[in-house]
Amino acid sequence: MRVLLTLILLTLFLPSHSQAAKISDATEECVECHAMVAPGMVAAWKESRHAKTSPEEGLEKPQLERRISAEKVPEELAKSAVGCAECHTINADKHSDTFEHNGYQVHIVVTPEDCATCHPVEAKQYGENLMSHAYGNLENNSLYQDLARTINGVQFLEQGQTKITPPGPETSAESCLACHGTKVEVKGFDERDTELGPMEFPVLSNWPNEGVGRINPDGSKGSCSSCHTWHRFSIEMARKPYTCSQCHKGPDVPIYKIYQVSKHGNIFNAMGKKWNFEAVPWTVGKDFTAPTCATCHVSLVVKEEGDVVAERTHRMNNRLPWRIFGLIYAHAHPKSPDTSVIKNKAGLPLPTELNGDPASTYLIDNQEQQNRRKVLQQVCRACHSQQWVEGHWLRFENTIKTTNEMTLTATKLMMQGWDTGVAKGLAQDSSIFDEALEKKWVEQWLFFANSTRMSSAMLGTDYGVYDNGRWYMAKNIQEISDWLKMLHSVGGETSLTVKPNKQ
Amino acid sequence: MRVLLTLILLTLFLPSHSQAAKISDATEECVECHAMVAPGMVAAWKESRHAKTSPEEGLEKPQLERRISAEKVPEELAKSAVGCAECHTINADKHSDTFEHNGYQVHIVVTPEDCATCHPVEAKQYGENLMSHAYGNLENNSLYQDLARTINGVQFLEQGQTKITPPGPETSAESCLACHGTKVEVKGFDERDTELGPMEFPVLSNWPNEGVGRINPDGSKGSCSSCHTWHRFSIEMARKPYTCSQCHKGPDVPIYKIYQVSKHGNIFNAMGKKWNFEAVPWTVGKDFTAPTCATCHVSLVVKEEGDVVAERTHRMNNRLPWRIFGLIYAHAHPKSPDTSVIKNKAGLPLPTELNGDPASTYLIDNQEQQNRRKVLQQVCRACHSQQWVEGHWLRFENTIKTTNEMTLTATKLMMQGWDTGVAKGLAQDSSIFDEALEKKWVEQWLFFANSTRMSSAMLGTDYGVYDNGRWYMAKNIQEISDWLKMLHSVGGETSLTVKPNKQ
Amino acid sequence: MRVLLTLILLTLFLPSHSQAAKISDATEECVECHAMVAPGMVAAWKESRHAKTSPEEGLEKPQLERRISAEKVPEELAKSAVGCAECHTINADKHSDTFEHNGYQVHIVVTPEDCATCHPVEAKQYGENLMSHAYGNLENNSLYQDLARTINGVQFLEQGQTKITPPGPETSAESCLACHGTKVEVKGFDERDTELGPMEFPVLSNWPNEGVGRINPDGSKGSCSSCHTWHRFSIEMARKPYTCSQCHKGPDVPIYKIYQVSKHGNIFNAMGKKWNFEAVPWTVGKDFTAPTCATCHVSLVVKEEGDVVAERTHRMNNRLPWRIFGLIYAHAHPKSPDTSVIKNKAGLPLPTELNGDPASTYLIDNQEQQNRRKVLQQVCRACHSQQWVEGHWLRFENTIKTTNEMTLTATKLMMQGWDTGVAKGLAQDSSIFDEALEKKWVEQWLFFANSTRMSSAMLGTDYGVYDNGRWYMAKNIQEISDWLKMLHSVGGETSLTVKPNKQ
Repeated sequence: MRVLLTLILLTLFLPSHSQAAKISDATEECVECHAMVAPGMVAAWKESRHAKTSPEEGLEKPQLERRISAEKVPEELAKSAVGCAECHTINADKHSDTFEHNGYQVHIVVTPEDCATCHPVEAKQYGENLMSHAYGNLENNSLYQDLARTINGVQFLEQGQTKITPPGPETSAESCLACHGTKVEVKGFDERDTELGPMEFPVLSNWPNEGVGRINPDGSKGSCSSCHTWHRFSIEMARKPYTCSQCHKGPDVPIYKIYQVSKHGNIFNAMGKKWNFEAVPWTVGKDFTAPTCATCHVSLVVKEEGDVVAERTHRMNNRLPWRIFGLIYAHAHPKSPDTSVIKNKAGLPLPTELNGDPASTYLIDNQEQQNRRKVLQQVCRACHSQQWVEGHWLRFENTIKTTNEMTLTATKLMMQGWDTGVAKGLAQDSSIFDEALEKKWVEQWLFFANSTRMSSAMLGTDYGVYDNGRWYMAKNIQEISDWLKMLHSVGGETSLTVKPNKQ
Repeated sequence: MRVLLTLILLTLFLPSHSQAAKISDATEECVECHAMVAPGMVAAWKESRHAKTSPEEGLEKPQLERRISAEKVPEELAKSAVGCAECHTINADKHSDTFEHNGYQVHIVVTPEDCATCHPVEAKQYGENLMSHAYGNLENNSLYQDLARTINGVQFLEQGQTKITPPGPETSAESCLACHGTKVEVKGFDERDTELGPMEFPVLSNWPNEGVGRINPDGSKGSCSSCHTWHRFSIEMARKPYTCSQCHKGPDVPIYKIYQVSKHGNIFNAMGKKWNFEAVPWTVGKDFTAPTCATCHVSLVVKEEGDVVAERTHRMNNRLPWRIFGLIYAHAHPKSPDTSVIKNKAGLPLPTELNGDPASTYLIDNQEQQNRRKVLQQVCRACHSQQWVEGHWLRFENTIKTTNEMTLTATKLMMQGWDTGVAKGLAQDSSIFDEALEKKWVEQWLFFANSTRMSSAMLGTDYGVYDNGRWYMAKNIQEISDWLKMLHSVGGETSLTVKPNKQ
Repeated sequence: MRVLLTLILLTLFLPSHSQAAKISDATEECVECHAMVAPGMVAAWKESRHAKTSPEEGLEKPQLERRISAEKVPEELAKSAVGCAECHTINADKHSDTFEHNGYQVHIVVTPEDCATCHPVEAKQYGENLMSHAYGNLENNSLYQDLARTINGVQFLEQGQTKITPPGPETSAESCLACHGTKVEVKGFDERDTELGPMEFPVLSNWPNEGVGRINPDGSKGSCSSCHTWHRFSIEMARKPYTCSQCHKGPDVPIYKIYQVSKHGNIFNAMGKKWNFEAVPWTVGKDFTAPTCATCHVSLVVKEEGDVVAERTHRMNNRLPWRIFGLIYAHAHPKSPDTSVIKNKAGLPLPTELNGDPASTYLIDNQEQQNRRKVLQQVCRACHSQQWVEGHWLRFENTIKTTNEMTLTATKLMMQGWDTGVAKGLAQDSSIFDEALEKKWVEQWLFFANSTRMSSAMLGTDYGVYDNGRWYMAKNIQEISDWLKMLHSVGGETSLTVKPNKQ
């Protein structure tokens, strides 16, 4: 009896990682000071698996349970915990942000290339993910650059007309590029007074940033910490929908809001507290009973006997036949994660024509769509019957079609605006995003058609009808139509002579 | 000492259902295959009370603790757990979706009539709930059908005018009818390749669906799994507000959003993790210290000594004196859950005239309102003083009055639009929902007046002022007024000759 | 071994307050009846620290751990738990709502002055908080009173023009004043039938209310229970963001929504369930690894060795250099919490001119701003590097500048409206908030510029771009510009002769 009790109590009180890995001397040295100056940062790391496990221990796990994908890890890193020094001094010579710090060659920005030391498969997959190219896909697309300018620029009045001062780097860094990623470069070095005396540090441009497509000082793209929040790097956190919501909640991409009104989100919210978000692999039914974002789009999901439902993917788009947001029309996914190469027949950097016809050369074909559909449907099938899944997809793909049709109608009205001169567009070498009428047209696809499609994809009906979906698609076409007439009536935008302001 | 320890430890480690009920052979057979093909579905059920308790055990509980309301359960069902076979083979001959499946007569859709085997009182009450009639109340109301058409239909341009293609069944099923319920019928039978060889299945129309007023293949109405999510059927989940939010979050019925900014929601969010959501009956103070949706509107709530605060109701409207959303004006609750019978004096299928006068024949009278008010106030009184509760209700009923007045003002402006011909309405035998001006008028009542009332009812001030309430009511009247003038100025909607689109 | 086990088990099963303080006879008497009539209220209190601790015990704690700030507590209160009688009978003669109740002189409304018996420092600090003046700052500002009137009043039509009936007290109490606080006065006394026979109670005006600037029947200002929800008074609850969200969620002050899409909110949502929200002081890294509202704005935060990161403040504005919401332009914080004393050069009760120039006499200077910036940045520095924090602040203060510029542009357009007569403003002795064009202008600053600034301050990018931020700032200026032209075209608001309504 006493032995039994002891065993039970040991089970109760033992930490889950009974034997923590040794922390390297270098990391001990880092922690000594940094635990004083920024204790929150160090505390998060101490709670992490990185602080308690060595790569060697990770490599000993059976294949399905492995969290690291390297076949082998450099010997000098293999046996100690993954700490400050391990990540912030690796690849020192590749990093332009490397600086001498208490005898160590330290760099500030830890990049996917650094993480690839232990996680090469994930880093490579992520390189094929649209997200890793989010910086260039925005910055190297003239139309989207103009969209950003018309949103983030400062409007002022000049002779009664509104003009725009383009946004500065501070504004861009906390608007589009906060999610897309900034370009982080070393601008110079600066000596600073610190609690421990004067020290020299690199001065980084566009810092801080943890955007998904960040351009790093070692030339690599992306930031693993966008989702694997530093310095805890918790898989639990990455698997919970809050992480995705940081960039996927607004009306342009309301994924989180939709998930919240879906049955899946409802189950997660009500019952998820009892789930196991740490397990690798992630076993459907045992570890969780409804999907989060990660389940369908990223995670290695298995059945209780070990059968793989879906392989882990940090590329994500291999489970996605359609690209349903961000562009004017939904379309087959682009072939390359670098979308800045796309040009439609009209010469615009868009994956469709303005009438919705796909720029097919740049997009995956039906067969590849079918492959991806199957991969994703396998996840659905872990809880739902075939008829259920097929019924759902029939609706979803019907909605892709009808929302594209609604966008086409709005686009035709918009073209009337451009043709009749009440709005100035490409023919006048003018922005197609800067006038009130144009902004209504943008909302038709960027907000309303998009939200309707996402609501359909993820079963968030309530959002897709009234919240920001079909109601607004329908209303917006009518408002665009009336606005067009009213603009005609006032003789187009240039007719009003505005008197000088009196104050 | 050792005995004490043993007892304590037993208490700690014993599952709450010490003796699980026997699972029937038939269900064992189901589980054998389905645990492989859809493990998530089976896992959810295994966690359920259904999987661990027999009806007989349920019947042994004292009255207040009983979760089943049948006096007696068919003998063949009484002693085993409530599993796949028990629910999916019962009433086989009433179900047009019954099919032969591995030697069993199985039906796909489990209905309130099936659940009534053990839960007859709840099924009967639910039949008197507006929700069970949600399909017909929408489909058999010509005005609301037109509203749905103008929201969900696809607009296209014909000779410069917008026209509407009515929504197809796929669109309806994932918009209005996702919550209201679809009509599920057997379209035929189909042989399919499965992991276990070819099998024949019924093909269902408008499937999947879990809407509250679903028309089932056995002719019954509703779906218990709208709230009691399959296959867990958790009372905890039904009592948490996330479940209600699936259909009650958008601007037309933002109950969940309002609850979230109420003190009640605040307490639930901050402290609810320690509450007991499983207890029957539900004891105020002991099991919870602030209400969720279910507390006020559904649950059997008692005081610690056992005094009943409120009887369980799946009818819900016996606690509701007013109907405050969905219609043009707030009004006394309709007498019958089938609202498609209502006609106002003007012959419209509405519970009020267009000026707000109630169609009293169809609505409950003051006395019945007073009865229902008292029932609901009893729940408030479990935590609040009489003066507090009366002060709250005074404000709420004042808000019903003022929001109706604001709707009347908007409606009068709308009528000017119809009278002067800048919008086409009933007199022109035209939709009253399809033009921009009309859609603004709809938002006045369907979104803004409604949100303001709900915010008042549930103390979500923040929502009712700026979020989608009084600010928008006030602004919208002014916009409608200006829009009217602008439409007059452009000569009504038909005056613009739109040039053919050039692309 | 057995001893060890015993100790471990004792630790497991002992309540955290091993020796509950004695409950006074008076409170026992209260509880006896009230546990029957309003069990939820009493249950909440029984869970509170107040019910389990005496002031004397509180005073014994080391300084940093003390939750009460009095040097000494009146002897008759020192030794018993803080119960019904202790709070509802103290200062009886100062309370106009005191009444005889079963032999006790009881008052209904417990006020900051009552709480100051044990918490004088917090009460004093709170008196310097803008929030404690929220009633007067709204009611004694003629412009803001007019804003409230135009939002909450009932609009009706008179000879084709919209007019406004000012809001009654019921409406005000559940809109602006629900958060700002009502004026609670004793209107008289009333005998009521209760479950325990007839009793006399004071009748309170504008009750219930828990607004932050409530005017109390003892003449004091504010309500501690706005955040320290009665009768649990949980510090855990006050520290969780849900509490703040009750008044800070709408588009005018969307702090909670922004927090939810910030990395901080993400960490709180995903990992916060394991944090210690009860600890005083609150240790960064140990008790929590990301801030909630309270961490940055209120709480006593320390490092693990005890170093104080930030002193507790119920004044809050000593950590706030800028006032970024509620007014037309962001500006340095006002010197006095009573902002009704402010007049700009144009004589308006505003902290800036209409062109944004600050009414500097009433606002803190650069040095004080710098002091406050430093205090707040100390909190950031507990987890972030200096460069990180400075980079963030650079962006934030740039955003203050650019959003003010966008408001200026909208204001110049608005002034054109007033100058050209298409809208009626101050020159016509008319409201500047009641017309559609004016309401669009109000949204520019009250919603969009404000949301953009808050998103910047709290790193909620997603909200600040599309959700209610820069996109709408940019779009709104264009809509205002077009609307101006359209109003010109229809000849201003008075030109339309509206025909009498036919219904």
